[in-house]
Amino acid sequence: MNQHEQEVIVEASALQSVCSQLYQKVGVAESDAETVAEMQVLMDLRGVHSHATRAVPRYVRGIINGDINPTPELQVLEDNAASVLLNGDRGLGHLVGVRAMNMAIEKAKSASIGVAIARNSNHFGAASSHAMRAVAHDMIGFATTNGLGVNVAVFGARSTSIGNNALSFAIPAGEEPPIVLDMACGAAAAGRIGTARLYQEKIPLGWGLDADGNETDDPSKVAAILPAAGPKGSALAIVMDVLCGPLSGGLMGINKHYQPGDAPLEKRVSSHFFFAINIASFTAVSDFKTEIDRQIQMTRQATPRSGFTRVTLPGEIEWELTQERRENGIPLHREPVRELEQLADELDVDIPWDRQ
Amino acid sequence: MNQHEQEVIVEASALQSVCSQLYQKVGVAESDAETVAEMQVLMDLRGVHSHATRAVPRYVRGIINGDINPTPELQVLEDNAASVLLNGDRGLGHLVGVRAMNMAIEKAKSASIGVAIARNSNHFGAASSHAMRAVAHDMIGFATTNGLGVNVAVFGARSTSIGNNALSFAIPAGEEPPIVLDMACGAAAAGRIGTARLYQEKIPLGWGLDADGNETDDPSKVAAILPAAGPKGSALAIVMDVLCGPLSGGLMGINKHYQPGDAPLEKRVSSHFFFAINIASFTAVSDFKTEIDRQIQMTRQATPRSGFTRVTLPGEIEWELTQERRENGIPLHREPVRELEQLADELDVDIPWDRQ
Repeated sequence: MNQHEQEVIVEASALQSVCSQLYQKVGVAESDAETVAEMQVLMDLRGVHSHATRAVPRYVRGIINGDINPTPELQVLEDNAASVLLNGDRGLGHLVGVRAMNMAIEKAKSASIGVAIARNSNHFGAASSHAMRAVAHDMIGFATTNGLGVNVAVFGARSTSIGNNALSFAIPAGEEPPIVLDMACGAAAAGRIGTARLYQEKIPLGWGLDADGNETDDPSKVAAILPAAGPKGSALAIVMDVLCGPLSGGLMGINKHYQPGDAPLEKRVSSHFFFAINIASFTAVSDFKTEIDRQIQMTRQATPRSGFTRVTLPGEIEWELTQERRENGIPLHREPVRELEQLADELDVDIPWDRQ
Repeated sequence: MNQHEQEVIVEASALQSVCSQLYQKVGVAESDAETVAEMQVLMDLRGVHSHATRAVPRYVRGIINGDINPTPELQVLEDNAASVLLNGDRGLGHLVGVRAMNMAIEKAKSASIGVAIARNSNHFGAASSHAMRAVAHDMIGFATTNGLGVNVAVFGARSTSIGNNALSFAIPAGEEPPIVLDMACGAAAAGRIGTARLYQEKIPLGWGLDADGNETDDPSKVAAILPAAGPKGSALAIVMDVLCGPLSGGLMGINKHYQPGDAPLEKRVSSHFFFAINIASFTAVSDFKTEIDRQIQMTRQATPRSGFTRVTLPGEIEWELTQERRENGIPLHREPVRELEQLADELDVDIPWDRQ
């Protein structure tokens, strides 16, 4: 079966409407439901399906099960000139992230940089969906997260002991699209290995170890994800874990996972760390953007290596995909679409596309 | 010739004394000379020779030539609640970094995070020598830099267009040594490729491209360093360049390099970006350190993969080397030691070790 046969094309607006209604059915306020659905659909538009609407059934069932709070009221635990520490009230991670990032942006307006750390949250989707929020304010955004999962082997280790923590920087440009770095510290995101599994494709050696500690190209056999660039990705994963976990008064991923009895539940779920840097506090925004545009244009003109047809900036392919898919619809794998349809049936939400 | 025959053992205190005197001979104040020499010797102790005393002749000759200011007076160009922007007065990068990082630490005491950006500086040595300064204040330190060099090929490109920008995080622990990430965004630091060239060793494929755009294992043929982990290291290098260059009102590395006529000289030399995060603004320092110690101890207990004898934390091997070399002296390659001796002769500084 080739890729195309496994896919269905769905319009962004239809997908957004279904996801938003699903959230509303389980108690999320309409504007919040629209926000979360929009962030997730944006990741499908960008081609980052691992962190997109594929997660909607998991989140909705998390709300139904009582693991996720659909109406979080964030508490400010610490408030400083340039930062806040928040209790996320075990909310949907997207909503916790939006509110935290907005606070970081507010702090940055007066203090030049704003940090917001939130604990007691849940999976917040793609880190870039939060970091990018700073761009419209002419700020550089940063977002990272840790969670309960420990699916990466520290450099040199045979088995997992660290989360595949993601980090994102978003940088505003002038006429060009923003530069958006969004990376997992592991050689690949678990969701990307999951995508390969869905499509029954092999993965490159160097992404993961099997249960015997050997490198594998079979996505269904990955027992431990390898760190990106060996010691570098491994160290970055540890640092991101520290910024989210211990710095928020919580735990490193491994301790969330293995020692649940040691700490109250609120320390064991996801934590996030965000910052926003106000460009105008340091230099003229127009000068900054001119220089970023120039870098983008020069990078694009670089001669590609053999095996490459062009040289792109971080986030550029995702930006182009977004424009194209808003026009022509989003190709989604049938299986997660079926899951979405099944959930819609359960919750009495209409499906506006032809069913699979 | 094996590695040992090319080396000489020098005591840290003797090395420090010679380097400090060399700086003083060209007009650096005694306490500043001691500071710079100490930071560089520390990198030899840590085994990071590429960013250690090997650079002393280059810096001293830079001062003699008038390219580097031995007595920089930093100007505060912007001052906000949580940040400063500095003009480094084209000073020795180590001194600019020390003063900037100290300001970031001061800002963090009141604002919870402090950012210091310095432009018009020079090569600041190892990023970790600056980031680690925060640790004694119970803060998390971060340092990054850009420069004039563009020696890394952006992901997918055949030739260089970005600097091999380094970044470092330093995280305080309790009973354990601090966690210290110090990485170049390229697959390897230019200095490390230089070390391989010195020792006439091959380098792994994946570090660099030759002039024809093919991967090479010959360190003398590297025309472009490849980014670490492909798009990830490439994007990180771009982001670090933005934080140091355009955010400081300066230029990206490639523009410093290729368009010198476009901008005043002060925008074309090195810029640095630092931050310090005050742990006590977010959580109890003792809780934080307990959790970091626990992570360190658990990581060490991980079962090594085949090919590894142990699992270490970022900076742990460097920490151990430091203790061992303080005791037994530092093995240095004869060639840079000869350069140091030659400079000492020129400047009338005594060499306290047996000459090569």
